[in-house]
Amino acid sequence: MLTPVTDAFAADLRARLPAACFRDLTPAYLEEPRGRYRGQGGLLLAPGTVEEVAEIVRACAAARVGVVPYGGGTGLVGGQVMDSGPAPVIVTLERMRAIRAVHPAENVLIAEAGAILAEVQDAAEAAGRLFPLSLASEGSARIGGVLSTNAGGVNVLRYGNARDLCLGIEAVLPDGSVLHGLKRLRKDNTGYDLRHLLIGAEGTLGIITAAALKLVPPPARTGAALLAVTDPQAALDLLALAQGRIGEGVSAFELIHRQGLDFLAETMPEIRQPWAEPPEWCVLIDLGLGAGQDPGAALEGLFAEAAGAGLVSDGLIAQSEAQRAAFWALRESLPLANRKIGAISSHDISVPLSAIPDFIACAGSALAALGRFRVNCFGHVGDGNLHYNVFPMPGETRADHEDKRAAIKRCVHDLVHALGGSVSAEHGVGRLKVEDLERYGDPARLAAMRAIKTALDPAGIMNPGAVLA
Amino acid sequence: MLTPVTDAFAADLRARLPAACFRDLTPAYLEEPRGRYRGQGGLLLAPGTVEEVAEIVRACAAARVGVVPYGGGTGLVGGQVMDSGPAPVIVTLERMRAIRAVHPAENVLIAEAGAILAEVQDAAEAAGRLFPLSLASEGSARIGGVLSTNAGGVNVLRYGNARDLCLGIEAVLPDGSVLHGLKRLRKDNTGYDLRHLLIGAEGTLGIITAAALKLVPPPARTGAALLAVTDPQAALDLLALAQGRIGEGVSAFELIHRQGLDFLAETMPEIRQPWAEPPEWCVLIDLGLGAGQDPGAALEGLFAEAAGAGLVSDGLIAQSEAQRAAFWALRESLPLANRKIGAISSHDISVPLSAIPDFIACAGSALAALGRFRVNCFGHVGDGNLHYNVFPMPGETRADHEDKRAAIKRCVHDLVHALGGSVSAEHGVGRLKVEDLERYGDPARLAAMRAIKTALDPAGIMNPGAVLA
Repeated sequence: MLTPVTDAFAADLRARLPAACFRDLTPAYLEEPRGRYRGQGGLLLAPGTVEEVAEIVRACAAARVGVVPYGGGTGLVGGQVMDSGPAPVIVTLERMRAIRAVHPAENVLIAEAGAILAEVQDAAEAAGRLFPLSLASEGSARIGGVLSTNAGGVNVLRYGNARDLCLGIEAVLPDGSVLHGLKRLRKDNTGYDLRHLLIGAEGTLGIITAAALKLVPPPARTGAALLAVTDPQAALDLLALAQGRIGEGVSAFELIHRQGLDFLAETMPEIRQPWAEPPEWCVLIDLGLGAGQDPGAALEGLFAEAAGAGLVSDGLIAQSEAQRAAFWALRESLPLANRKIGAISSHDISVPLSAIPDFIACAGSALAALGRFRVNCFGHVGDGNLHYNVFPMPGETRADHEDKRAAIKRCVHDLVHALGGSVSAEHGVGRLKVEDLERYGDPARLAAMRAIKTALDPAGIMNPGAVLA
Repeated sequence: MLTPVTDAFAADLRARLPAACFRDLTPAYLEEPRGRYRGQGGLLLAPGTVEEVAEIVRACAAARVGVVPYGGGTGLVGGQVMDSGPAPVIVTLERMRAIRAVHPAENVLIAEAGAILAEVQDAAEAAGRLFPLSLASEGSARIGGVLSTNAGGVNVLRYGNARDLCLGIEAVLPDGSVLHGLKRLRKDNTGYDLRHLLIGAEGTLGIITAAALKLVPPPARTGAALLAVTDPQAALDLLALAQGRIGEGVSAFELIHRQGLDFLAETMPEIRQPWAEPPEWCVLIDLGLGAGQDPGAALEGLFAEAAGAGLVSDGLIAQSEAQRAAFWALRESLPLANRKIGAISSHDISVPLSAIPDFIACAGSALAALGRFRVNCFGHVGDGNLHYNVFPMPGETRADHEDKRAAIKRCVHDLVHALGGSVSAEHGVGRLKVEDLERYGDPARLAAMRAIKTALDPAGIMNPGAVLA
């Protein structure tokens, strides 16, 4: 059983930690972007060193006080706020924000967990390198949270998820011991890979305090195109064609449905739309090529072949970096437009690539049996990852359908599961999907997860209630 | 405490498993390539299905009999032979050899653990795809072993280690439960990543029975060059130059020392050497490019710039696929020449990329204090991974230096550790490096590894004596 933070516990910590570690617990630390969870009061601590993090965790382990690690607060599944149970210690990594080192010749950067993702990108760029992880919240998400949730984003197709961009971690384990694993190695086969165990564990197995991150040489030439595709299958065929012609040069491949463009027109009319009459489906292709290559010519060649094969009917190829940025601004504005419309239920799902057309078709029919909705289906189709968000019809509000939310979610998730997919492709489990994990998770896997959790955190102090009930 | 296989135990299994599962325990299953370990007798089982593997493991767990998983037998650290303790069950995966499915549109292939690596490569090629894992023993190594040891090889620079090429696994856990994790997903953030925990665990946490493997579109154009470099630092500078100019198109970047070419000339004079007077250091660069690109031109451009910068003094660019194959045959013959000469001590190490020149210089001086030796230092320098092998002087044999072997190993490994490196870059821990892991491993990491091992395998039946003492 956990115990709440008490005055005596706080006083004891005050005697052991510098004053700078203590911060006022403002409401921001108890909220999350979708407003579904409300954290409860407790003690907010902002350690400045890994030793201070270890001191905090040791004290919490001894007193059986819960520890909630807090990054940038951008998580969408409630992993960062503990909404029930004894009042915990909230550990924000915001003071551990240093870029400890950049090794451009090795393509490695060492960042503390509190570094903002955009700061890491900037530090890489200043060294003539690229840190390719890119996602909508990069201006506030912190590296520790990005790793703890194994964040994805738009460049996974080429460069992988957060875990694929991490060579080593420093972390404080649930007993307060420090895992010194900031290796700058591409190959190290000496035992169990605890790095990959902590990455994606959402703070339930320890607190990541720093990471050795992979950098890449930035592409010399970039390009982008918005191509209208016949249907989702044509999008997949176009992807295969693009990868066959251009290889790893295809950095991103995003699917956009007309519904998203309509939402944009409705909520943000200031954003210039590429088409007067939007196609039902289009894709945004982004290229990053070497110095001797011509992205425009590559995209024109791709378009010609795809048009000949009946995959694409229309398209725009960015003629400048500004146009490429405009294409991306369009794509990155979709989530904001969604928020302005107000989804009844949002789903971050993945299915095997070839099951995408089936998923889209079947989800549409299954939802129709539950009522009339608008669906904005978009996302990282190159990774099999779609954001499938369900909205009320014009004139209705999400509140009108609150009673249908559970059924909609269940309907979408059941279909995803039946197709061999994942009900959380890139956002994690947090608190929102604990029941889904129970329902859809492999029993042997769940049992092994519980055994590992109990072995490393016998008192259950680390992020109580997240991932595993 | 484990118990040995008894006649009663074997009889019980005979009643529960088809006769095809029982094979004669021939000496091959008790040997390993370097001849340092000799396995002991026990019971050899060749299950044909994952359910039969589970049945075996459940029986062993109940009776506390050790289980040694056996792949292709090519491991170089004794992970596949149990040389002491109660006689175990040896589980060979050779009957589970099917390619269960190929999904070219998804770039995914499902292979059973007993599939030979070369068979997987062939199945991918037949579907117009590439499975890029490539290593010297690919003609006999099996996928289960390749994953269990997180094997590396020559294409890690571009495509990653075995773990980076695996999307999901099916495995039998130490309690005999079956982990159904053959997901074909690029993104799945639903809880702890048990796939990465079992990959590289060398059979100590369960038996991998099948895997969903990543394929890639094969490069349309390939090319290779052998370039004489001034010194190891020049090799690194050349790598950075190549990656800056050609990006991911650089598939492999291998360092070769003159000693290796001399060994080749001595032991395999039939192999044609590229130089009459070999340079002290050279690198083999391999390119895989898109359809519109010209590997020859890319290599010529690279050579010109590198020569201008004083990095390379001489070089050969393959003018045909046959010449490229000849360059690779030269590289791949180095280990065989080494075996013919007979190393006193072999080391599979990695250090941060920028520490490579220091490592080579310091290791040379440190060894000189122990005696006069020949050193063949070669390998995957693009990954920071060197095979640093120490040989007797001409006229001497390895037996003359048997007493110095421990000191040589310690000397090399101490230096690697001091430089932040790994004493097992791609071969694993097995039984050979258990003590090294104890000596150099992070205490918190070792404690967490032990806790996980105990949690998942409380009786310690899985590959006893490997990885953890």
